[in-house]
Amino acid sequence: MTVPRRRTASEQVSVALLDAAETVLDRDGAAAVTVRAVAREAGVAPMGVYNRFSSKDGLLAALAIRAFDDLAAAIDVGPEGGPADRLHRACRGYRRFALSHPARYTLIFDVGSPAADPASPVTARGREVFAVLVDMVRGLTLRRGLDPLHAAQALWNGQHGAVTLELAGVVQTPDAAATFDQTIDVVIRGLQTPRA
Amino acid sequence: MTVPRRRTASEQVSVALLDAAETVLDRDGAAAVTVRAVAREAGVAPMGVYNRFSSKDGLLAALAIRAFDDLAAAIDVGPEGGPADRLHRACRGYRRFALSHPARYTLIFDVGSPAADPASPVTARGREVFAVLVDMVRGLTLRRGLDPLHAAQALWNGQHGAVTLELAGVVQTPDAAATFDQTIDVVIRGLQTPRA
Repeated sequence: MTVPRRRTASEQVSVALLDAAETVLDRDGAAAVTVRAVAREAGVAPMGVYNRFSSKDGLLAALAIRAFDDLAAAIDVGPEGGPADRLHRACRGYRRFALSHPARYTLIFDVGSPAADPASPVTARGREVFAVLVDMVRGLTLRRGLDPLHAAQALWNGQHGAVTLELAGVVQTPDAAATFDQTIDVVIRGLQTPRA
Repeated sequence: MTVPRRRTASEQVSVALLDAAETVLDRDGAAAVTVRAVAREAGVAPMGVYNRFSSKDGLLAALAIRAFDDLAAAIDVGPEGGPADRLHRACRGYRRFALSHPARYTLIFDVGSPAADPASPVTARGREVFAVLVDMVRGLTLRRGLDPLHAAQALWNGQHGAVTLELAGVVQTPDAAATFDQTIDVVIRGLQTPRA
């Protein structure tokens, strides 16, 4: 009988502490993710959290990397379908992630994000996830003057704007889900060379 | 000799208190705009603020209305130029407002905005400013299936996403101003019937 490799005891503790930190983040927001609050949530001494994550910034960086991992999974739509169809599905996954985990979404993309620091590993991970979008955009026949990087940024702008206004509750159209799809459709059409 | 109508003493006090509240907002963010902090900033007794604005929510509502007035002025581009050109200029004014006054912008469009409450006068004022964008969009030859309301929301999503990612410092392209213009161009093209 074989057993899958199990996490070491030390790894298990790190995961348990990060789970506790995520619980605090989801419930109380990024400002509440302190070494002390995470220790309380996990039922350990503050030193146990401090030894692994050093500080609030260390905790938020680890949470942000995890959030980018989750976002990467949410926009992973597989190889099926044409490029526009795949982008639509990826964008819907992106919206689901944002609406399901607003505090994680805010952590990585709002003012104060660890991904704004060029030297942070969070920024490198964010760039990798953005590269997935860039690669998907490469499948489109882009309008002259547009490269995949700028095209992907335009698409990201559209979807980020749509989900953040939805989260804020200030969208001016009656059906936010339909409006999101419509925005993605408008941007994808605008990115491409018009069909004859 | 005629003189323009001058504000009454009471109006002058209200304006002075709102100026003080705006100073607190711009410097310390919406959470810091309390009756006590505004009184301190204005050099009056808290009762003087309380009598006019009742509460923190009353202060934030008055500030949000003023922010919408400023935004309306920022996107007012006059009648010159074609519809796409006017929209581009209005969007550039929108970006300038957001970047110059990030706390005011966040107050009206982020989570916690008074404009999320359907019963608030702030929401009515926000709807009026959005209607300016809807009217400008009416000048475009919209793609079949798109009405001006949904087209304006798509454009708003694009520009809101662009400026909020810029404010957060996480844009993936080197020139945020150029990327903003490009996003607006992509959306405006995506909204319109393709030229033959």
